[in-house]
Amino acid sequence: MFRRNYSSALLEEAVDQLATLPGVGRRTALRLALHLLGQPRENVEQFSDALLRLRQDIHHCPVCGMISDDGTCPVCGDPHRDPTVVCVVESLRDVLSIENTGQYSGLYHILGGIISPIDGVGPGDLRIHELGDRLAQGQIREVVLALSTSMEGETTAYYLYKQIARYPVSVTAIARGVGFGDDLEYTDELTLGRSITNRQPFKP
Amino acid sequence: MFRRNYSSALLEEAVDQLATLPGVGRRTALRLALHLLGQPRENVEQFSDALLRLRQDIHHCPVCGMISDDGTCPVCGDPHRDPTVVCVVESLRDVLSIENTGQYSGLYHILGGIISPIDGVGPGDLRIHELGDRLAQGQIREVVLALSTSMEGETTAYYLYKQIARYPVSVTAIARGVGFGDDLEYTDELTLGRSITNRQPFKP
Repeated sequence: MFRRNYSSALLEEAVDQLATLPGVGRRTALRLALHLLGQPRENVEQFSDALLRLRQDIHHCPVCGMISDDGTCPVCGDPHRDPTVVCVVESLRDVLSIENTGQYSGLYHILGGIISPIDGVGPGDLRIHELGDRLAQGQIREVVLALSTSMEGETTAYYLYKQIARYPVSVTAIARGVGFGDDLEYTDELTLGRSITNRQPFKP
Repeated sequence: MFRRNYSSALLEEAVDQLATLPGVGRRTALRLALHLLGQPRENVEQFSDALLRLRQDIHHCPVCGMISDDGTCPVCGDPHRDPTVVCVVESLRDVLSIENTGQYSGLYHILGGIISPIDGVGPGDLRIHELGDRLAQGQIREVVLALSTSMEGETTAYYLYKQIARYPVSVTAIARGVGFGDDLEYTDELTLGRSITNRQPFKP
Protein backbone atom coordinates (compact mmCIF):
# COMPACT_ATOMS: atom_id res chain seq x y z
CA MET A 1 0.00 0.00 0.00
CA PHE A 2 2.79 2.39 0.88
CA ARG A 3 6.49 1.80 1.32
CA ARG A 4 6.88 -0.48 4.31
CA ASN A 5 9.90 1.35 5.71
CA TYR A 6 7.92 4.54 6.28
CA SER A 7 4.77 2.96 7.59
CA SER A 8 3.52 3.26 11.14
CA ALA A 9 2.99 0.00 12.99
CA LEU A 10 -0.04 1.51 14.74
CA LEU A 11 -1.58 2.53 11.42
CA GLU A 12 -0.79 -0.83 9.84
CA GLU A 13 -2.46 -2.65 12.70
CA ALA A 14 -5.58 -0.50 12.55
CA VAL A 15 -5.77 -1.04 8.77
CA ASP A 16 -5.29 -4.80 9.23
CA GLN A 17 -8.15 -4.90 11.71
CA LEU A 18 -10.51 -2.70 9.68
CA ALA A 19 -9.82 -4.85 6.61
CA THR A 20 -11.30 -7.86 8.43
CA LEU A 21 -14.76 -6.26 8.17
CA PRO A 22 -16.98 -7.69 5.41
CA GLY A 23 -16.82 -5.63 2.21
CA VAL A 24 -13.85 -3.56 3.42
CA GLY A 25 -10.64 -3.87 1.40
CA ARG A 26 -7.25 -2.48 2.42
CA ARG A 27 -7.77 0.75 0.52
CA THR A 28 -11.07 1.45 2.26
CA ALA A 29 -9.56 0.32 5.57
CA LEU A 30 -6.81 2.92 5.17
CA ARG A 31 -9.42 5.60 4.45
CA LEU A 32 -11.37 4.62 7.57
CA ALA A 33 -8.22 4.55 9.71
CA LEU A 34 -7.16 8.02 8.51
CA HIS A 35 -10.69 9.25 9.23
CA LEU A 36 -10.48 7.98 12.81
CA LEU A 37 -7.00 9.48 13.16
CA GLY A 38 -8.47 12.88 12.32
CA GLN A 39 -11.28 12.64 14.87
CA PRO A 40 -11.19 14.03 18.43
CA ARG A 41 -9.74 11.55 20.88
CA GLU A 42 -12.99 11.13 22.88
CA ASN A 43 -14.94 10.31 19.72
CA VAL A 44 -12.58 7.45 18.92
CA GLU A 45 -12.78 6.28 22.53
CA GLN A 46 -16.58 6.16 22.30
CA PHE A 47 -16.38 4.43 18.94
CA SER A 48 -14.00 1.76 20.17
CA ASP A 49 -15.91 1.34 23.42
CA ALA A 50 -19.31 0.88 21.73
CA LEU A 51 -17.98 -2.00 19.61
CA LEU A 52 -16.26 -3.63 22.56
CA ARG A 53 -19.35 -3.41 24.77
CA LEU A 54 -21.58 -4.73 21.99
CA ARG A 55 -19.56 -7.93 21.99
CA GLN A 56 -18.84 -8.17 25.72
CA ASP A 57 -22.08 -7.10 27.35
CA ILE A 58 -24.78 -8.42 25.07
CA HIS A 59 -26.93 -11.34 26.23
CA HIS A 60 -28.64 -14.05 24.25
CA CYS A 61 -32.17 -15.13 25.10
CA PRO A 62 -32.06 -18.73 26.42
CA VAL A 63 -35.43 -19.43 24.74
CA CYS A 64 -35.16 -18.04 21.20
CA GLY A 65 -31.51 -16.97 20.87
CA MET A 66 -32.32 -13.29 20.21
CA ILE A 67 -29.94 -10.64 21.53
CA SER A 68 -30.93 -8.49 24.46
CA ASP A 69 -29.25 -6.06 26.82
CA ASP A 70 -30.21 -7.91 30.02
CA GLY A 71 -30.96 -11.59 29.48
CA THR A 72 -34.72 -11.33 29.03
CA CYS A 73 -35.48 -11.19 25.32
CA PRO A 74 -37.91 -8.35 24.49
CA VAL A 75 -39.82 -10.47 21.94
CA CYS A 76 -40.32 -13.52 24.17
CA GLY A 77 -41.23 -11.22 27.07
CA ASP A 78 -43.83 -9.23 25.14
CA PRO A 79 -47.37 -10.29 26.23
CA HIS A 80 -48.80 -8.95 22.95
CA ARG A 81 -46.93 -11.48 20.81
CA ASP A 82 -48.64 -14.76 19.92
CA PRO A 83 -46.80 -17.54 21.82
CA THR A 84 -48.46 -20.30 19.76
CA VAL A 85 -46.53 -19.41 16.57
CA VAL A 86 -42.75 -19.76 16.25
CA CYS A 87 -40.75 -18.66 13.22
CA VAL A 88 -37.51 -20.58 12.72
CA VAL A 89 -34.69 -18.54 11.19
CA GLU A 90 -31.00 -18.95 10.60
CA SER A 91 -29.71 -15.79 12.27
CA LEU A 92 -30.43 -12.60 14.16
CA ARG A 93 -30.24 -10.71 10.88
CA ASP A 94 -33.30 -12.61 9.63
CA VAL A 95 -35.24 -11.68 12.78
CA LEU A 96 -34.44 -8.01 12.22
CA SER A 97 -35.56 -8.29 8.58
CA ILE A 98 -38.88 -9.91 9.51
CA GLU A 99 -39.48 -7.47 12.39
CA ASN A 100 -38.82 -4.71 9.90
CA THR A 101 -41.88 -5.76 7.90
CA GLY A 102 -44.17 -5.33 10.91
CA GLN A 103 -46.23 -8.26 9.57
CA TYR A 104 -45.35 -10.95 12.11
CA SER A 105 -46.62 -11.12 15.68
CA GLY A 106 -45.41 -14.55 16.80
CA LEU A 107 -42.16 -15.60 18.46
CA TYR A 108 -38.84 -16.65 16.94
CA HIS A 109 -36.32 -19.44 17.15
CA ILE A 110 -32.82 -18.63 15.93
CA LEU A 111 -30.93 -21.75 14.82
CA GLY A 112 -27.55 -20.05 14.74
CA GLY A 113 -26.73 -21.39 11.28
CA ILE A 114 -27.87 -24.04 8.82
CA ILE A 115 -26.86 -27.64 8.28
CA SER A 116 -23.82 -27.56 6.00
CA PRO A 117 -21.61 -30.67 5.82
CA ILE A 118 -19.02 -28.76 3.74
CA ASP A 119 -18.56 -26.23 6.54
CA GLY A 120 -18.71 -29.00 9.15
CA VAL A 121 -22.03 -27.78 10.59
CA GLY A 122 -24.31 -30.64 11.64
CA PRO A 123 -27.71 -30.67 13.39
CA GLY A 124 -25.94 -30.90 16.75
CA ASP A 125 -24.27 -27.52 16.18
CA LEU A 126 -27.59 -25.74 15.81
CA ARG A 127 -30.26 -24.87 18.38
CA ILE A 128 -32.52 -27.69 17.19
CA HIS A 129 -32.63 -29.50 20.54
CA GLU A 130 -33.85 -26.25 22.14
CA LEU A 131 -36.62 -26.05 19.54
CA GLY A 132 -37.71 -29.57 20.53
CA ASP A 133 -37.83 -28.50 24.18
CA ARG A 134 -40.06 -25.56 23.30
CA LEU A 135 -42.40 -27.78 21.24
CA ALA A 136 -42.53 -30.37 24.05
CA GLN A 137 -44.08 -27.75 26.35
CA GLY A 138 -47.23 -28.02 24.22
CA GLN A 139 -48.11 -24.33 23.81
CA ILE A 140 -46.87 -23.96 20.23
CA ARG A 141 -49.38 -24.70 17.43
CA GLU A 142 -47.48 -23.58 14.34
CA VAL A 143 -43.85 -23.59 13.25
CA VAL A 144 -43.03 -21.23 10.35
CA LEU A 145 -39.86 -22.18 8.50
CA ALA A 146 -38.11 -19.06 7.14
CA LEU A 147 -34.83 -20.53 5.90
CA SER A 148 -32.90 -19.71 2.75
CA THR A 149 -33.66 -21.58 -0.49
CA SER A 150 -30.09 -22.81 -0.86
CA MET A 151 -29.26 -26.52 -0.80
CA GLU A 152 -28.27 -26.16 2.86
CA GLY A 153 -31.45 -24.29 3.68
CA GLU A 154 -33.63 -26.95 2.03
CA THR A 155 -31.72 -29.71 3.84
CA THR A 156 -32.17 -27.96 7.17
CA ALA A 157 -35.87 -27.38 6.50
CA TYR A 158 -36.38 -31.06 5.66
CA TYR A 159 -34.46 -32.18 8.75
CA LEU A 160 -36.51 -29.86 10.96
CA TYR A 161 -39.73 -31.04 9.31
CA LYS A 162 -38.89 -34.67 10.20
CA GLN A 163 -37.98 -33.69 13.77
CA ILE A 164 -41.10 -31.60 14.25
CA ALA A 165 -43.37 -34.36 12.91
CA ARG A 166 -43.53 -36.00 16.37
CA TYR A 167 -45.25 -32.95 17.85
CA PRO A 168 -48.89 -31.95 17.17
CA VAL A 169 -48.02 -28.71 15.37
CA SER A 170 -48.59 -27.49 11.82
CA VAL A 171 -45.43 -26.70 9.84
CA THR A 172 -45.56 -23.87 7.32
CA ALA A 173 -42.94 -22.09 5.19
CA ILE A 174 -42.77 -18.50 4.04
CA ALA A 175 -44.21 -17.94 0.55
CA ARG A 176 -41.82 -17.95 -2.40
CA GLY A 177 -42.64 -16.24 -5.66
CA VAL A 178 -42.06 -13.24 -7.86
CA GLY A 179 -41.22 -10.23 -5.69
CA PHE A 180 -43.39 -7.11 -5.66
CA GLY A 181 -42.12 -4.77 -8.34
CA ASP A 182 -40.08 -7.50 -10.05
CA ASP A 183 -40.36 -7.98 -13.80
CA LEU A 184 -41.34 -11.49 -14.90
CA GLU A 185 -38.74 -11.13 -17.64
CA TYR A 186 -35.90 -10.87 -15.12
CA THR A 187 -37.17 -13.42 -12.60
CA ASP A 188 -35.22 -16.67 -12.56
CA GLU A 189 -37.00 -19.72 -14.02
CA LEU A 190 -37.17 -21.66 -10.75
CA THR A 191 -38.88 -18.82 -8.90
CA LEU A 192 -41.27 -18.05 -11.75
CA GLY A 193 -42.03 -21.76 -12.24
CA ARG A 194 -42.82 -22.24 -8.56
CA SER A 195 -44.91 -19.08 -8.38
CA ILE A 196 -47.09 -20.43 -11.22
CA THR A 197 -47.40 -23.87 -9.62
CA ASN A 198 -48.28 -22.33 -6.27
CA ARG A 199 -50.73 -19.81 -7.74
CA GLN A 200 -53.39 -18.55 -5.39
CA PRO A 201 -56.98 -17.26 -5.70
CA PHE A 202 -56.94 -13.70 -7.01
CA LYS A 203 -58.14 -11.19 -4.42
CA PRO A 204 -59.11 -7.96 -6.09
CA MET B 1 -34.33 -0.03 10.73
CA PHE B 2 -36.20 -2.39 12.99
CA ARG B 3 -38.96 -1.82 15.48
CA ARG B 4 -37.57 0.31 18.26
CA ASN B 5 -39.28 -1.62 21.04
CA TYR B 6 -37.32 -4.79 20.24
CA SER B 7 -33.98 -3.18 19.58
CA SER B 8 -30.94 -3.60 21.77
CA ALA B 9 -29.41 -0.40 23.13
CA LEU B 10 -25.95 -1.93 22.78
CA LEU B 11 -26.57 -2.81 19.13
CA GLU B 12 -28.10 0.61 18.42
CA GLU B 13 -25.08 2.34 19.89
CA ALA B 14 -22.62 0.23 17.90
CA VAL B 15 -24.61 0.93 14.72
CA ASP B 16 -24.71 4.66 15.51
CA GLN B 17 -20.94 4.70 15.93
CA LEU B 18 -20.18 2.62 12.82
CA ALA B 19 -22.48 4.87 10.77
CA THR B 20 -20.18 7.83 11.55
CA LEU B 21 -17.51 6.28 9.30
CA PRO B 22 -17.23 7.83 5.82
CA GLY B 23 -19.22 5.89 3.22
CA VAL B 24 -20.99 3.75 5.82
CA GLY B 25 -24.78 4.10 6.01
CA ARG B 26 -27.01 2.64 8.72
CA ARG B 27 -27.69 -0.51 6.73
CA THR B 28 -23.99 -1.24 6.26
CA ALA B 29 -23.33 -0.26 9.88
CA LEU B 30 -25.85 -2.89 11.01
CA ARG B 31 -24.16 -5.49 8.83
CA LEU B 32 -20.76 -4.62 10.32
CA ALA B 33 -22.13 -4.66 13.88
CA LEU B 34 -23.71 -8.10 13.36
CA HIS B 35 -20.43 -9.31 11.89
CA LEU B 36 -18.53 -8.16 15.00
CA LEU B 37 -21.22 -9.72 17.21
CA GLY B 38 -20.53 -13.08 15.56
CA GLN B 39 -16.76 -12.90 16.07
CA PRO B 40 -14.84 -14.44 18.98
CA ARG B 41 -14.59 -12.04 21.92
CA GLU B 42 -10.79 -11.68 21.73
CA ASN B 43 -10.96 -10.71 18.04
CA VAL B 44 -13.33 -7.85 18.84
CA GLU B 45 -11.09 -6.82 21.73
CA GLN B 46 -8.09 -6.66 19.39
CA PHE B 47 -10.16 -4.80 16.81
CA SER B 48 -11.37 -2.22 19.27
CA ASP B 49 -7.95 -1.88 20.86
CA ALA B 50 -6.12 -1.32 17.56
CA LEU B 51 -8.39 1.62 16.70
CA LEU B 52 -8.09 3.12 20.15
CA ARG B 53 -4.31 2.84 20.21
CA LEU B 54 -4.02 4.30 16.71
CA ARG B 55 -5.66 7.48 17.98
CA GLN B 56 -4.12 7.56 21.45
CA ASP B 57 -0.53 6.48 20.89
CA ILE B 58 0.38 7.91 17.51
CA HIS B 59 2.84 10.79 17.35
CA HIS B 60 3.16 13.60 14.85
CA CYS B 61 6.55 14.67 13.56
CA PRO B 62 7.27 18.22 14.83
CA VAL B 63 9.10 18.98 11.58
CA CYS B 64 6.85 17.73 8.76
CA GLY B 65 3.63 16.65 10.53
CA MET B 66 3.86 13.00 9.40
CA ILE B 67 2.63 10.29 11.75
CA SER B 68 5.09 8.04 13.52
CA ASP B 69 5.02 5.54 16.33
CA ASP B 70 7.65 7.26 18.48
CA GLY B 71 8.02 10.96 17.74
CA THR B 72 10.84 10.77 15.21
CA CYS B 73 9.36 10.73 11.71
CA PRO B 74 10.84 7.96 9.56
CA VAL B 75 10.99 10.18 6.46
CA CYS B 76 12.71 13.16 8.14
CA GLY B 77 15.06 10.74 9.91
CA ASP B 78 16.08 8.86 6.76
CA PRO B 79 19.64 9.88 5.69
CA HIS B 80 18.93 8.67 2.14
CA ARG B 81 16.20 11.26 1.54
CA ASP B 82 17.16 14.58 -0.05
CA PRO B 83 16.78 17.29 2.63
CA THR B 84 17.01 20.12 0.07
CA VAL B 85 13.59 19.33 -1.47
CA VAL B 86 10.31 19.67 0.44
CA CYS B 87 6.94 18.67 -0.96
CA VAL B 88 4.01 20.59 0.54
CA VAL B 89 0.78 18.59 0.80
CA GLU B 90 -2.59 19.00 2.44
CA SER B 91 -2.76 15.79 4.43
CA LEU B 92 -1.13 12.54 5.48
CA ARG B 93 -3.17 10.76 2.82
CA ASP B 94 -1.33 12.72 0.11
CA VAL B 95 2.03 11.70 1.58
CA LEU B 96 1.00 8.04 1.46
CA SER B 97 -0.15 8.45 -2.16
CA ILE B 98 3.14 10.07 -3.23
CA GLU B 99 5.23 7.53 -1.29
CA ASN B 100 3.25 4.84 -3.05
CA THR B 101 4.64 5.97 -6.41
CA GLY B 102 8.23 5.45 -5.25
CA GLN B 103 9.21 8.46 -7.41
CA TYR B 104 9.97 11.03 -4.74
CA SER B 105 13.01 11.09 -2.52
CA GLY B 106 12.73 14.48 -0.80
CA LEU B 107 11.01 15.43 2.44
CA TYR B 108 7.42 16.53 3.11
CA HIS B 109 5.53 19.28 4.81
CA ILE B 110 1.93 18.51 5.78
CA LEU B 111 -0.20 21.66 6.03
CA GLY B 112 -3.06 19.93 7.84
CA GLY B 113 -5.68 21.39 5.49
CA ILE B 114 -6.08 24.14 2.91
CA ILE B 115 -7.16 27.77 3.16
CA SER B 116 -10.96 27.74 3.02
CA PRO B 117 -12.82 30.85 4.21
CA ILE B 118 -16.17 29.00 3.90
CA ASP B 119 -14.99 26.36 6.38
CA GLY B 120 -13.35 29.02 8.53
CA VAL B 121 -9.82 27.78 7.81
CA GLY B 122 -7.33 30.61 7.49
CA PRO B 123 -3.52 30.59 6.99
CA GLY B 124 -3.06 30.68 10.78
CA ASP B 125 -4.82 27.32 11.13
CA LEU B 126 -2.31 25.58 8.87
CA ARG B 127 1.32 24.63 9.45
CA ILE B 128 2.56 27.52 7.29
CA HIS B 129 4.57 29.18 10.03
CA GLU B 130 6.43 25.89 10.55
CA LEU B 131 7.25 25.80 6.83
CA GLY B 132 8.75 29.29 7.15
CA ASP B 133 10.90 28.08 10.06
CA ARG B 134 12.20 25.21 7.95
CA LEU B 135 13.00 27.51 5.01
CA ALA B 136 14.74 29.98 7.33
CA GLN B 137 17.26 27.29 8.24
CA GLY B 138 18.67 27.67 4.71
CA GLN B 139 19.10 24.01 3.76
CA ILE B 140 16.03 23.76 1.50
CA ARG B 141 16.53 24.61 -2.20
CA GLU B 142 13.17 23.60 -3.71
CA VAL B 143 9.58 23.62 -2.52
CA VAL B 144 7.21 21.37 -4.53
CA LEU B 145 3.57 22.37 -4.21
CA ALA B 146 1.32 19.29 -4.44
CA LEU B 147 -2.07 20.79 -3.56
CA SER B 148 -5.46 20.09 -5.07
CA THR B 149 -6.64 22.07 -8.10
CA SER B 150 -9.77 23.29 -6.33
CA MET B 151 -10.38 27.00 -5.69
CA GLU B 152 -9.11 26.49 -2.13
CA GLY B 153 -6.04 24.60 -3.34
CA GLU B 154 -5.15 27.35 -5.83
CA THR B 155 -5.66 30.03 -3.17
CA THR B 156 -3.42 28.16 -0.74
CA ALA B 157 -0.76 27.62 -3.41
CA TYR B 158 -0.76 31.33 -4.27
CA TYR B 159 -0.58 32.31 -0.60
CA LEU B 160 2.35 29.94 -0.04
CA TYR B 161 4.08 31.21 -3.17
CA LYS B 162 3.95 34.77 -1.83
CA GLN B 163 5.20 33.65 1.59
CA ILE B 164 8.03 31.57 0.13
CA ALA B 165 9.18 34.41 -2.16
CA ARG B 166 11.27 35.89 0.65
CA TYR B 167 13.49 32.79 0.79
CA PRO B 168 16.07 31.86 -1.89
CA VAL B 169 14.31 28.67 -2.99
CA SER B 170 12.72 27.61 -6.27
CA VAL B 171 8.99 26.86 -6.13
CA THR B 172 7.61 24.12 -8.38
CA ALA B 173 4.23 22.42 -8.70
CA ILE B 174 3.38 18.86 -9.66
CA ALA B 175 2.56 18.44 -13.36
CA ARG B 176 -1.10 18.54 -14.42
CA GLY B 177 -2.27 16.91 -17.61
CA VAL B 178 -4.07 14.00 -19.19
CA GLY B 179 -3.55 10.90 -17.05
CA PHE B 180 -1.78 7.82 -18.35
CA GLY B 181 -4.38 5.54 -19.92
CA ASP B 182 -7.01 8.30 -20.06
CA ASP B 183 -8.88 8.91 -23.31
CA LEU B 184 -8.67 12.47 -24.63
CA GLU B 185 -12.37 12.16 -25.42
CA TYR B 186 -13.27 11.77 -21.76
CA THR B 187 -10.76 14.26 -20.32
CA ASP B 188 -12.32 17.49 -19.06
CA GLU B 189 -11.66 20.60 -21.15
CA LEU B 190 -9.66 22.43 -18.51
CA THR B 191 -7.22 19.56 -18.05
CA LEU B 192 -6.88 18.91 -21.79
CA GLY B 193 -6.49 22.65 -22.47
CA ARG B 194 -3.73 23.01 -19.89
CA SER B 195 -1.96 19.89 -21.05
CA ILE B 196 -1.77 21.37 -24.58
CA THR B 197 -0.60 24.75 -23.30
CA ASN B 198 2.03 23.11 -21.10
CA ARG B 199 3.19 20.67 -23.79
CA GLN B 200 6.72 19.36 -23.40
CA PRO B 201 9.50 18.13 -25.72
CA PHE B 202 8.70 14.62 -26.92
CA LYS B 203 11.13 12.04 -25.53
CA PRO B 204 10.96 8.85 -27.59
